[in-house]
Amino acid sequence: MINEELILPIPKSTEFPKINGKFFSQDILSLDQFDPISIDLLFNITVHMGEIARNAKVSNYLAGNIATLLFYEPSTRTRGSFDAATKQLGGQTIVVENPQQFSSVAKGETFGDTIKTFEAYCDLIILRHPEVGAAQKAAKAAEFVPIINAGDGIGEHPTQALLDLYTIFEKKHTLSGKKGLIVGDIKNGRTIHSLLRGLSLFKNNTVYLLSPEQLKLQRPLLEDLSQKGLKIFEISQESEIPRDCDFWYWTRVQKERFQDQAEFERLKHSFIATPQLLQKYGNDEMILMHPLPRVGEISEEVDSDPRAVYLRNQIRNGMYIRMALLGLVLGKIPARL
Amino acid sequence: MINEELILPIPKSTEFPKINGKFFSQDILSLDQFDPISIDLLFNITVHMGEIARNAKVSNYLAGNIATLLFYEPSTRTRGSFDAATKQLGGQTIVVENPQQFSSVAKGETFGDTIKTFEAYCDLIILRHPEVGAAQKAAKAAEFVPIINAGDGIGEHPTQALLDLYTIFEKKHTLSGKKGLIVGDIKNGRTIHSLLRGLSLFKNNTVYLLSPEQLKLQRPLLEDLSQKGLKIFEISQESEIPRDCDFWYWTRVQKERFQDQAEFERLKHSFIATPQLLQKYGNDEMILMHPLPRVGEISEEVDSDPRAVYLRNQIRNGMYIRMALLGLVLGKIPARL
Amino acid sequence: MINEELILPIPKSTEFPKINGKFFSQDILSLDQFDPISIDLLFNITVHMGEIARNAKVSNYLAGNIATLLFYEPSTRTRGSFDAATKQLGGQTIVVENPQQFSSVAKGETFGDTIKTFEAYCDLIILRHPEVGAAQKAAKAAEFVPIINAGDGIGEHPTQALLDLYTIFEKKHTLSGKKGLIVGDIKNGRTIHSLLRGLSLFKNNTVYLLSPEQLKLQRPLLEDLSQKGLKIFEISQESEIPRDCDFWYWTRVQKERFQDQAEFERLKHSFIATPQLLQKYGNDEMILMHPLPRVGEISEEVDSDPRAVYLRNQIRNGMYIRMALLGLVLGKIPARL
Repeated sequence: MINEELILPIPKSTEFPKINGKFFSQDILSLDQFDPISIDLLFNITVHMGEIARNAKVSNYLAGNIATLLFYEPSTRTRGSFDAATKQLGGQTIVVENPQQFSSVAKGETFGDTIKTFEAYCDLIILRHPEVGAAQKAAKAAEFVPIINAGDGIGEHPTQALLDLYTIFEKKHTLSGKKGLIVGDIKNGRTIHSLLRGLSLFKNNTVYLLSPEQLKLQRPLLEDLSQKGLKIFEISQESEIPRDCDFWYWTRVQKERFQDQAEFERLKHSFIATPQLLQKYGNDEMILMHPLPRVGEISEEVDSDPRAVYLRNQIRNGMYIRMALLGLVLGKIPARL
Repeated sequence: MINEELILPIPKSTEFPKINGKFFSQDILSLDQFDPISIDLLFNITVHMGEIARNAKVSNYLAGNIATLLFYEPSTRTRGSFDAATKQLGGQTIVVENPQQFSSVAKGETFGDTIKTFEAYCDLIILRHPEVGAAQKAAKAAEFVPIINAGDGIGEHPTQALLDLYTIFEKKHTLSGKKGLIVGDIKNGRTIHSLLRGLSLFKNNTVYLLSPEQLKLQRPLLEDLSQKGLKIFEISQESEIPRDCDFWYWTRVQKERFQDQAEFERLKHSFIATPQLLQKYGNDEMILMHPLPRVGEISEEVDSDPRAVYLRNQIRNGMYIRMALLGLVLGKIPARL
Repeated sequence: MINEELILPIPKSTEFPKINGKFFSQDILSLDQFDPISIDLLFNITVHMGEIARNAKVSNYLAGNIATLLFYEPSTRTRGSFDAATKQLGGQTIVVENPQQFSSVAKGETFGDTIKTFEAYCDLIILRHPEVGAAQKAAKAAEFVPIINAGDGIGEHPTQALLDLYTIFEKKHTLSGKKGLIVGDIKNGRTIHSLLRGLSLFKNNTVYLLSPEQLKLQRPLLEDLSQKGLKIFEISQESEIPRDCDFWYWTRVQKERFQDQAEFERLKHSFIATPQLLQKYGNDEMILMHPLPRVGEISEEVDSDPRAVYLRNQIRNGMYIRMALLGLVLGKIPARL
C-alpha cells in the first residue's frame, strides 16, 4: 500500500531565460538568450561531441533520458538531426509528427494540455511548430521539463544559427573581426536574421548583404544590428563582393514567402555560386556556407571544392551542437569538460 | 552448415485469460481479467515504476526486449505513454501507425497474417484498433507473444481503467469503501464503464452518476454492476452532489458519438467543473479526475488547485501502470519486489 | 578554442561492389554482389543471430551505431524487419517515411543532397525507393556510410532473396542439387527473379515454373539463367508438378502489375495451395514458401502444416539475415564467429 504522496519532479526555473553559462533545465527558445560566454562554453562541448559521433563511440551521457520530438510541421532534416543527436549520446526519443491531425489535438485539446501530457513522459521536449511564439507558449505550459525550439514558423530556429556560427568558429577559430558575404532573400531569410544577430554579439564584424532590391534587409532590423556594432554594407552586384571575406553564406530564395509566383521565378536564381564566381571573387582561406536545402543556387560543381562546407561540415555541426545542448540542458555533461 | 531445426520461441499460454496474479506471457485484453489480488500486485510494482521514471534513473528491466506499437488508429497520447513506458525501462519499440494505409495490409493481407508478421520481430505487441474485439482476435492470431489492448474502438482500454483506479488508490490508499461522482456522457463513455467495472471489484463502493437524461447509463450495465455490489445513484443536477465524495471523475461529451450535431452542441457543456462548483460541493480531501483530452468541461482555473490530478498525476500514472504491466508480462519484473 | 581541422569519417570503398567475403563498409545493392562463399559466410552468422533474437538475449553488437531507415515508399513489413534487426543487436534507428511529402525534399532538394544529409547523422542508410536504380544512386551520393537496398521498385530487394535462400538452406542444409516448384506471376515477380538468380549461383539446381501463359518468365532472363546452369522447366498445370520437390515457392499475382483489371481478376487465383494439392503432389520432406503478403493463393488451412514455413520461418529469417548483414557491414560482427 502507498502511504506517501506522489512526488513530482522538481519544477524548472521560471526566471528570465538568459543562459549566462548555466544551461541546466533551461528552455532554449531564442538566440537572444546567448551571450559570448555561453556560446564559447557550448562550442567547447561541441568539439567533444564531434569526436563521439565521428568515431561511433558508445556514449552514455543521456542514458535513462527520453526526449520528445513534437513536430507540428514535419522537417525530416531537423527531426533527423535531433533524433540522431539524442541517440548518439545514448538517449531515447518519442517521435510525434503532426499531432494536430490526430487524436487528442484533433479533438480540440489545447496546446497547453498537449505539452503537459508529453512532459509527463520525458525529460525534454523538442518542439517544431508553424506559429511564431509557439516555443515560448510551450515553455510556459511545461512545468517540469525544458523546451528546445526547433523552429517556430518565421520566428526563431536557434540551433540553426548556432551551427552556422560554430561552422565559422571551427574554421576561423574566433567569431570576432570577421568579414562575411550573405546572399539571397535577406528580407525573409530566418537563418540570415539569426546569423546576423549572432555575429552582432561579437566585436568588429562586417557583413556584405547581396540581394535583389526587393529582398533587402528590413530597415528596423538593419538599424538594430548596426547599433549593436555590426558593420553592414548592402551591395547589389557580384562585382562589389570584397575579395577578403572569411565566409560566404548563400541562401535559397524561398518560394513559400512570395505571393506573386512570377516575381519568385524572376528572382530565384538572381545569384548562383559557381566555381567561376569563387575563382573571381573568393580567396583560398574562405568558406562557402549554405543552410540547406538548396535548389540550384549553388552549382553542384562547387561541392568538391574544399571550401564548400555546406554538405559535410554544416550538417554534421548541426548534430554536434544539438548533442552539446541536450547534454548541457539535461545536466548530463558538465559545463567544463 | 546448419544441422538443427529452427527452434521457435515457446508458444504462449492459451488458457482462459484470467490473470490471478500471474502476468507472465499473458495477453492483457480486458479489465475483466483482473481481480483485487492482481490489481494490488500491479499497483505495488507501479509505485516502484514511478520512482524510476521521476528520477530519470537508468533502468534495464527491459534490456533486450522490443515491443511493437501497432496503431491502426493514431493516438499520440496513448502511443506516447506506451512508447515512453517501454523506453523508461530500457526496452525498445517498433512504431507502426496506420498500417492499413500502406503496403501489405493495403494489398489485402489478413489481420492475422499482419499480427503473425510483427510477432516475429518482437516480444510483445501493443495494439490500438478501431474495431471492438480486435485485441481478442490478435491474441488468438499471435502464437508466441502477448498482446496488450491499447483500446479497441468503443470496446476496452484496460490500461486507462487501471490508471484511473491507481490514481484513486494513490491518493486514498484503498479502493474499498469509496464514494465518487462521475459526470458526463455516462451512456457512451468507455472510460466510465471501465472505471465502474473496476470499482465493482472492490467492496462497499458508491457512485453518483450525473448526466443529461439522454446520456444516462444503459440499464443492462447498471443492473450488472448493481448485482456485483456497486451502489449507484443517478442524479440530474449539481445540487444533488453529496459533499463527501472521495473523487470526482469528469468526462468529455464525445462529439463522435452523436449523429445529431445540434444535440451534441446542446449537451456538450451541460456540466462544467469550476472553482465555484468545487467550492460549493467539494471537500478538502477529494480529488478531481478527468481521462483527458478535455475540451472546455473543466475550467483551466481549476488546474492549479491541488485537488486537480488530471494533468499531473493521471498522465504520469498512465505511464507508470504501463511500465509495470510491461515488466510483469515480459517476466522481467518479479511479481513481488 | 578549436585548433584542428574537422576530421571527417573515413570515406567508404568505391571499388566494384562484389562482396568476396568482405562485408565491412560495403554497399548492399543487389544479389549479384554475392558469390557462394559470401552467402555461406552470411548464413553462418545468421544462425547465430537467430539464437540472439529467439532468446531475447541482450546483444550489444551494434552499441553506438545508428541506422537511418529512409523509406520513400512505406513498407511496414520490411521497415519493421530492419528496425527490429537493428534494435535486436543494440543499435538505434532514425525512421524517415515519405520524405518526398515533406520539408527539404518537397522544397526541391536533390536526392543526392538528401542522402548526404542523412549520412551525416548515422552509420548506415537502409533505403526503400519506388524507382529502379535508386539504391545505386544513393550509394554514389553517400561518401561515408554504406547503403543497404531495401527494395527499389521492380528492381532489386536483395535481403528478400537472401532470406528465401536461407530458408531453403536452413531446412535442406545446402543450396546445391535442389529441385523446386515456383508458382504465380513469374513474368513480373521480383522475388522470383531474385530467387532464380540466387539458385543459379549454386550447382545442379532445377526449377519448375508454373504460371498462366501470360505470366511466363521473359525469354532473355530464362536464357541467361539457363546459361548459368540452372535447369528450368515451364509447366502449365498442377498435374505436371514433380512429386519430389525440395520446396514449393508460391507467390501472389500482383494487381499493381496489370493494366487490364479484368485480366487480373481472371488470373489472380489460377493456382491455389490447398491441403489437397499438397497431399496430391507434395512429399513429406518438402517445404512450402511464400514471400508474403498473400491474398488467398495459399489456403489458411495449410498454415498448421509443419511444411508451411512462410509465416514462421521466413518472416523470422528475414530479420535474422538483416541482423547478420548489419553486423557484418558495420564491422561489428567478425566474419567468422
